[in-house]
Amino acid sequence: MYKLKDYVGKYARVLNSDVLKVDTFLNFLVKPEVLNAIIEEVYDLYKDSKITKILTIEASGIGIACACALKLNVPFVFAKKSSSITNNSNMFSAKVTSYTHQNTYNAIVGKNLINENENILIIDDFLATGEAMLGLIDICKQAHANVCGIVSCIEKVYQNGGKKLRELGYRVDSLCMIHSMDVNTGIKFD
Amino acid sequence: MYKLKDYVGKYARVLNSDVLKVDTFLNFLVKPEVLNAIIEEVYDLYKDSKITKILTIEASGIGIACACALKLNVPFVFAKKSSSITNNSNMFSAKVTSYTHQNTYNAIVGKNLINENENILIIDDFLATGEAMLGLIDICKQAHANVCGIVSCIEKVYQNGGKKLRELGYRVDSLCMIHSMDVNTGIKFD
Repeated sequence: MYKLKDYVGKYARVLNSDVLKVDTFLNFLVKPEVLNAIIEEVYDLYKDSKITKILTIEASGIGIACACALKLNVPFVFAKKSSSITNNSNMFSAKVTSYTHQNTYNAIVGKNLINENENILIIDDFLATGEAMLGLIDICKQAHANVCGIVSCIEKVYQNGGKKLRELGYRVDSLCMIHSMDVNTGIKFD
Repeated sequence: MYKLKDYVGKYARVLNSDVLKVDTFLNFLVKPEVLNAIIEEVYDLYKDSKITKILTIEASGIGIACACALKLNVPFVFAKKSSSITNNSNMFSAKVTSYTHQNTYNAIVGKNLINENENILIIDDFLATGEAMLGLIDICKQAHANVCGIVSCIEKVYQNGGKKLRELGYRVDSLCMIHSMDVNTGIKFD
């Protein structure tokens, strides 16, 4: 069976040394065989970790989180991105600066949706600077829940987010690790 | 096995005659047993319809579309909501007015993601005034793809979107049809 890395090698297009287009198989359009590859890998990694919930952030993380949640038979929650500063006492909120979109937003999750002492698996499509993941970790901390692991489909190793999270002591599993990209020479995997 | 309607009856909270909270089982937090109920119903309805792709719109449609796509073994695509008027020749775009959020946005999908003559199943969580569905239908028309059916998890019958779509000749399957809601007397299903 093919792994996510095989599909990234086959379908992803390098636009420049920073931007990888995965819109035809991993986000916007999501192929079922790619989802199945992700599901199998994540299930093997976390089937014994007593995960009680998966946490992701809209929008491209949702499909991946949903597929893994079905396989692990746990609920998933997605954080919304809110541009307004909410002071809503019913919501956990964490400020995130997006490197890709060059903006700042609040990741928000209803306080009724994550419980104390839950075992959370955080999942997203990309791990670059790690800002979105840090926002989701912050939300788990506010909920007094345990972060059992962080899964990214594609880690851009050179943007150091994965390094930062591992140094903070988190378990980070990236299904595909990109060391560098170049329009002419393509993707160099770790 | 329970159906979506059973879960709506059990978990949904009526905030007022217009707003139904489903954040603890259908969007924001999505329960796997609820997804499995949806999957089974949609699969029974469309397994023989030669669907080639599922189309939805961010954010709360994504998980549902993803789960159904896995079961039907077809790709899914989600439209993004863009507040800026894009004049991007690489995108299909349709204007949508949201009754819930009282705003207007463009639903956009890359032109490379839907092909001519594809058999599209449109899926979303709610069907109220039908504006979002009409936007997705418009995108399918621009792509010269066939709309084989429209699935909503919950149809608010009294907002007439379903009626409008059926009168236009579309097949509409709503897994749960709400005739009226009231804080004191609850949900009246069709």
